[in-house]
Amino acid sequence: MILVNGVQGDRIAVQDRGLHYGDGLFETIAVIDGIPCLWRRHMQRLMQGCRRLALPEPDPGLLKEEAQRVSAGHERAVLKIIVTRGGNGRGYRAGKKAGVTRIVARYDWPEYPAEFLLRGIRLRVCNTRLGNNPALAGIKHLNRLEQVLARSEWHDPRIAEGLMLDQNDYVIEGTQSNLFVVKQGCLLTPELSRCGIKGVMREWIQEQGMALGIECSETDLTLQDVMEADELFMCNSLMGIWPVRSIGEADFAIGPVTRRLLTVLGNSRGAGHA
Amino acid sequence: MILVNGVQGDRIAVQDRGLHYGDGLFETIAVIDGIPCLWRRHMQRLMQGCRRLALPEPDPGLLKEEAQRVSAGHERAVLKIIVTRGGNGRGYRAGKKAGVTRIVARYDWPEYPAEFLLRGIRLRVCNTRLGNNPALAGIKHLNRLEQVLARSEWHDPRIAEGLMLDQNDYVIEGTQSNLFVVKQGCLLTPELSRCGIKGVMREWIQEQGMALGIECSETDLTLQDVMEADELFMCNSLMGIWPVRSIGEADFAIGPVTRRLLTVLGNSRGAGHA
Repeated sequence: MILVNGVQGDRIAVQDRGLHYGDGLFETIAVIDGIPCLWRRHMQRLMQGCRRLALPEPDPGLLKEEAQRVSAGHERAVLKIIVTRGGNGRGYRAGKKAGVTRIVARYDWPEYPAEFLLRGIRLRVCNTRLGNNPALAGIKHLNRLEQVLARSEWHDPRIAEGLMLDQNDYVIEGTQSNLFVVKQGCLLTPELSRCGIKGVMREWIQEQGMALGIECSETDLTLQDVMEADELFMCNSLMGIWPVRSIGEADFAIGPVTRRLLTVLGNSRGAGHA
Repeated sequence: MILVNGVQGDRIAVQDRGLHYGDGLFETIAVIDGIPCLWRRHMQRLMQGCRRLALPEPDPGLLKEEAQRVSAGHERAVLKIIVTRGGNGRGYRAGKKAGVTRIVARYDWPEYPAEFLLRGIRLRVCNTRLGNNPALAGIKHLNRLEQVLARSEWHDPRIAEGLMLDQNDYVIEGTQSNLFVVKQGCLLTPELSRCGIKGVMREWIQEQGMALGIECSETDLTLQDVMEADELFMCNSLMGIWPVRSIGEADFAIGPVTRRLLTVLGNSRGAGHA
C-alpha cells in the first residue's frame, strides 16, 4: 500500500524534484504489531533534515495518521516515508510554489536468516568510498548513489553487509547500517560530521549504553582500529543489532556488551518501544 | 511534452530507483530549429555514465527517435533526458529485473537577458561546497543536492551564476555550468577527477580552442587564480558561452579569447552544429 500526499496510488509526477535531483529525505521504519517503532526519533531526524535542506516540514499529525493507516493490522512490515520538494522539474532553483510531496509506503518485512542474529554476520570492506561533505552529512537524504555502488560490489548472499570508508581512510558505516565497536568495555561509533547517516537505532543504542553505565563515544576509526576491536556490531531500524562474526578472513566473537544490548533491544521490542 | 518509456504521460512509478536513490543520469540539451544540438556528445556522455554506474545502456536509436519526436517543430526548446535503473524501490541492491526507465521531456527555452551575452554575467562565490568522490566525478548523475543547496543561496536576479569550490578550496564549476579562465592567452579549466560534471559544451570549447591554436589545459585552480584571470567565462549546453563581468566586487572585461570563441559558437549554432 502506498499513499502519495494522502491518496492511495503508485505514481508520482515526472516533474518531481525528488526524481530530478534527489531533492528530499526518507525514513525506513520497522512496523511491529501494527505500530511504527521509534516513531518520535524518526520524525525528529526527518524534521532536522527538512531544516538542513530548507524543505517545508510536512505536518507531523498528518504523517502519523498516514503511517498508522498503512501499518494497521501488520504484524511485521517496513514503512518507508519519502518527503521531496515537489516542484516543476527543471532548474536547481526551487520555485516558490515547489511545495512538498509526501509518500508513505508499506513493504514486506525482509526475511533475514536467523543465524545473522544468533551467530553474527559476515562483512566485507567496500571499494566504493563515501564522499566528504559536511553540508549533507548525518541526514537521510535521497542522494544515495554511493550506497548503490557499494552494494553492487558483491552478490554472495552469505555476506550481509559491507563497510564503507571515507576519502580519508576512516571507516564510517555499512551500506545500510551504522557500526559500533567495543574496546575495553567502551562503545565507540564513527563520528559522522563529514559523511554518513546518523541512524535512529544508533542514537537509541548510544542512549541505552549510557543507561547501562557503558562509556560511549563518537570518534574517527581506521580499519585497523575496527580489526582490533573486542566486539563489533552493526545496527539499523529494521535489523536492530547484528553482531559481526567476520570481516573478510578475520573472525570475531559475540561479546558481553553486544549481548547486553541485544537483551535490552529484545525486551524493548517485545514491549513495542524500539 | 513528456515521453516515459516512449509513451506520452507525466507520471512515473513511485517505486522508481531514480526517486529513491537518484539512481540514474540525465542530459539537458538545447533544441534549435527542431534539432537537438551536440546530440552525439550528449549520447557519449550518457553512455559513459551508464558504464560508470553499471546501468543498462538505453537503445540509442530509440532515444534519438524520441528526442526528435519531442523536438520537432520547435524553434527553441530544452530537451531533458533522464535514464534511471527503474526497479522496485526498496534496498540499495538492484534486482536483476530492475530494468531502465527512459524519460524524454521538452521544456520552454529559458529567456536569458540579452546583456548576459553582450556584457557578461555577475557571479558570486557559493558557501555550499562540492564533496569529493572520484567514483561519481565527471558524470551527470541524479544526485544533485549540492547544486540545489548552492543555488538556494541567492535570490538576486542580477546574479546569474554561483561558483562552487570543493573541500580542498579549489574552484570546480558553476552550479549549472563549467568555468574557463584565460591566462596569458591560454585556456584553463578545472580538472574534474574528484568532483564536478564534465560538460558537453566544455568539451566542445576545448576542441574549438585547440583548433584555433589556443593552448588548453585542465588544472587545479584556486579562487585567487580565478580572481587574477585575464578573462573568464562560464558555459553549458543551453547558454553556450557567457562572459563573466564580475565576481562579487571584482570586475572583468570581455577579452579577445572569449570573443573569438563566441564568434565560433555563433557561427556553429547558426549552422546547427553546437
